[in-house]
Amino acid sequence: MSKELTKRADDYSQWYNELVVKSQLADHSAVRGCMVIKPYGYALWENMKDQLDKMFKETGHVNAYFPLFVPKSLFEAEETNAEGFAKECAVVTHYRLKSDPNNKGKLIVDPEAKLEEELVVRPTSEAIIWNTYKGWIQSYRDLPILINQWANVVRWEMRTRLFLRTAEFLWQEGHTAHATKEEAVEETVKMLDVYADFVEEYMAVPVIKGVKTANERFAGAEDTYCIEALMQDGKALQAGTSHFLGQNFAKAFDVKFSDKNNKQAYVWATSWGVSTRLIGALIMAHSDDQGLMMPPKIAPIQVVIVPIYKGDDSKPVIDGKVATLVAELKALGVRVKYDDSDNARPGWKFAEYELKGVPVRVAMGLRDLENNVVEVARRDTKAKETVSMDGLATYLHQLLATIQQNMYNNALAFRNEHITPVDSWDAFMDVLENKGGFVAAHWDGTPETEEKIKELSKATIRCIPLNNVAEAGVCVLTGNPSTQRVLFARAY
Amino acid sequence: MSKELTKRADDYSQWYNELVVKSQLADHSAVRGCMVIKPYGYALWENMKDQLDKMFKETGHVNAYFPLFVPKSLFEAEETNAEGFAKECAVVTHYRLKSDPNNKGKLIVDPEAKLEEELVVRPTSEAIIWNTYKGWIQSYRDLPILINQWANVVRWEMRTRLFLRTAEFLWQEGHTAHATKEEAVEETVKMLDVYADFVEEYMAVPVIKGVKTANERFAGAEDTYCIEALMQDGKALQAGTSHFLGQNFAKAFDVKFSDKNNKQAYVWATSWGVSTRLIGALIMAHSDDQGLMMPPKIAPIQVVIVPIYKGDDSKPVIDGKVATLVAELKALGVRVKYDDSDNARPGWKFAEYELKGVPVRVAMGLRDLENNVVEVARRDTKAKETVSMDGLATYLHQLLATIQQNMYNNALAFRNEHITPVDSWDAFMDVLENKGGFVAAHWDGTPETEEKIKELSKATIRCIPLNNVAEAGVCVLTGNPSTQRVLFARAY
Ligand SMILES: [Zn+2]
Ligand SMILES: [Zn+2]
Repeated sequence: MSKELTKRADDYSQWYNELVVKSQLADHSAVRGCMVIKPYGYALWENMKDQLDKMFKETGHVNAYFPLFVPKSLFEAEETNAEGFAKECAVVTHYRLKSDPNNKGKLIVDPEAKLEEELVVRPTSEAIIWNTYKGWIQSYRDLPILINQWANVVRWEMRTRLFLRTAEFLWQEGHTAHATKEEAVEETVKMLDVYADFVEEYMAVPVIKGVKTANERFAGAEDTYCIEALMQDGKALQAGTSHFLGQNFAKAFDVKFSDKNNKQAYVWATSWGVSTRLIGALIMAHSDDQGLMMPPKIAPIQVVIVPIYKGDDSKPVIDGKVATLVAELKALGVRVKYDDSDNARPGWKFAEYELKGVPVRVAMGLRDLENNVVEVARRDTKAKETVSMDGLATYLHQLLATIQQNMYNNALAFRNEHITPVDSWDAFMDVLENKGGFVAAHWDGTPETEEKIKELSKATIRCIPLNNVAEAGVCVLTGNPSTQRVLFARAY
Repeated sequence: MSKELTKRADDYSQWYNELVVKSQLADHSAVRGCMVIKPYGYALWENMKDQLDKMFKETGHVNAYFPLFVPKSLFEAEETNAEGFAKECAVVTHYRLKSDPNNKGKLIVDPEAKLEEELVVRPTSEAIIWNTYKGWIQSYRDLPILINQWANVVRWEMRTRLFLRTAEFLWQEGHTAHATKEEAVEETVKMLDVYADFVEEYMAVPVIKGVKTANERFAGAEDTYCIEALMQDGKALQAGTSHFLGQNFAKAFDVKFSDKNNKQAYVWATSWGVSTRLIGALIMAHSDDQGLMMPPKIAPIQVVIVPIYKGDDSKPVIDGKVATLVAELKALGVRVKYDDSDNARPGWKFAEYELKGVPVRVAMGLRDLENNVVEVARRDTKAKETVSMDGLATYLHQLLATIQQNMYNNALAFRNEHITPVDSWDAFMDVLENKGGFVAAHWDGTPETEEKIKELSKATIRCIPLNNVAEAGVCVLTGNPSTQRVLFARAY
């Protein structure tokens, strides 16, 4: 396969699709809408998962595992939630195959093995989990429950794209139970903060924290908080959500507890999740026409070392120097790879690691070594410099931190340049069509206007920012009074 | 719920079922045959998973993720494998629910959303993976592929037991591709060794490495290697398997590569897996009538500290001492919990942590502290001793290693006492009925005799041990000549 990518300016969507496959992050599979996450992509996901898991545990959460299947009668118990997901459900109806009597060596679904009650493959686990919590919660002493689950979920999608929208995806879903509304709201916001910290600090992607409008809320939630990120093509991407579920699930599954005064009350709930979709956000926030750009903190390979030599004589000299450097880097906790494979020339390797977005490349040639230097190339700025071998490991370790910060700064500058306040419908459409990004506009607060704007502009309200300032104005579409600007954008 | 367990001697099976639930490892769910792995059980699984993952990576493997669903046409491609699993397959036939027109608020499967091709929920992933490998392998340079996947799988079971046999379970499955038969066989044995090392060193359960007879082989394998463990009730449990798959899947999915001489050849395959079933093995190899016994190396909590005090005045004094001890233990990498909750008395807590199998309990009372000592109780021997506070952390850290070794020694002694060579059918049956464990007996090597023995005794050939010595003899059932003893047992 050629490494040449379609240019972003020519076809951003095509560029993305090619990049995911050519950089070996993921591939299409034989199953409609399902992806194969390849080792390089999975190593990235592991780094993200490990850090998130650590942050969840530091905030008092524990992991558990609940069934993949949800019996239909449980699935439909919380009606809003069920209606929201009904159209996307993969359904297991049979539990056995048998030999096809008309086609030797082939199998058919055994009609005698039909399930009495169909099983929904979880699109999200509130139903099965709240049905379980019912058995775990009697008294206030059983609260809070602070559980997270790492799992696969399935949402049948007609139009799929690797990482961004796949029928099966990997995610984590937190499901917590609380004695009071205040505590549940606090948890919802706390986890939104954890997500924001993770995405900004580790993925180097700035986000806006906000709350969704009723139209955009999670099915079954009282409030959906979200973090919104901006992609290079000016479209927004919802990077994580944290839901305050009120007592909806507790009521649907009859989960009550007796408080300190022995009074019965329904339990308060939250749920929150991020998924492999974050990888899509990472790609579209940082990469360029040459390939991926991995933020050092979660890059599967942080530093790659490529030897440059002619003839086999010089190889052992380089190997020796590399061994020392690798040991020093590993001691500093740096994920380093020495690529001395002999099936590709250095130039091919340079392009390969550029495509894969390895933050730092070290080229070690024999002549350089004689001068006690190496060539260090940064993936983010493409800058190359000659660096002394003395203290090189420390230098590279520091450089990784610099790159992480620089990537964040660039993404932040781009994002900030693309929050445009507008006060007229013409300006609204003009920004969407010609500049992209978030449009900060007044809206009259009605679902009808929101819907109408979406029809006219394909833009949705991404969120009402948490740090919003009150400001009197008039709705950009209807001219009706408004008390604050909200953020619109076209979105993934 | 009462903590009182059925005694093992009274009803081993009932004891097991109660223990799993009462110790909070897992629970039954609303989904037939599927379990909920509770936080304590999941923390155990995480410790096991982390160590296995480390060992897989140290042996050159990388993780990836393949789809949950297998289209029926792919599933049936390798016929032996397909036939072996056909009877246990959950099948997705529809991709949408809709409102029930006759029952407001309820959902039905939308008959118009029937899949053209049914999707099997993976019972194992050889089919989907080898169909994928076809696209990844062209030349010898693409080999070997050394991939592991952590995933959930579904095998429909009529009679289920928590951890031991559930419709859905968690596991890892390694799937490797090689240029030569020798290399594939070497990989198969290498991973068996990894499993054996893990189970013996971390779970403190001794295993016998062996190879399965044709009757007991994985469907689609040329050879199935296994590790067999012995439970306290004298039944064997297959703790892990590693399969040499020959070229069966390469042929079924047409996966060829061109070798160094540009000749086309089919690729050689292995697969290997362990699952949450290991937790069942752990429980049944070590626990007693008071509860679980966690091997320190994978115990979610290694040391629990329980304060003993009257009135609130003395509590801060104890807290202070505990804080220091906890910090010291954590610095040594010990997983320690200070249970100063005020909703249970010390005696209740003692029983609770005994039930949960925490290896070491430290009781800290005010009078003890005045004498600069604490009470240390071992879960394995139930021994209690008074230990000086000076150097306590180091003492406890060392004690954990001692307990780990002692648990292994005990299990090994029990296992070794329960490998009984027999030379007659009467003795064979007598050992199975009255002593239990492995019976080392001559067998004439035919599947028919093996089947007959199973019918008569409910014992199967667990394995032909890898370290077997050749020994001429006659089959314990037929009297036909035999060249070696094999290990029979009744098994989980
Ligand atoms: Zn570092
Ligand atoms: Zn230690």
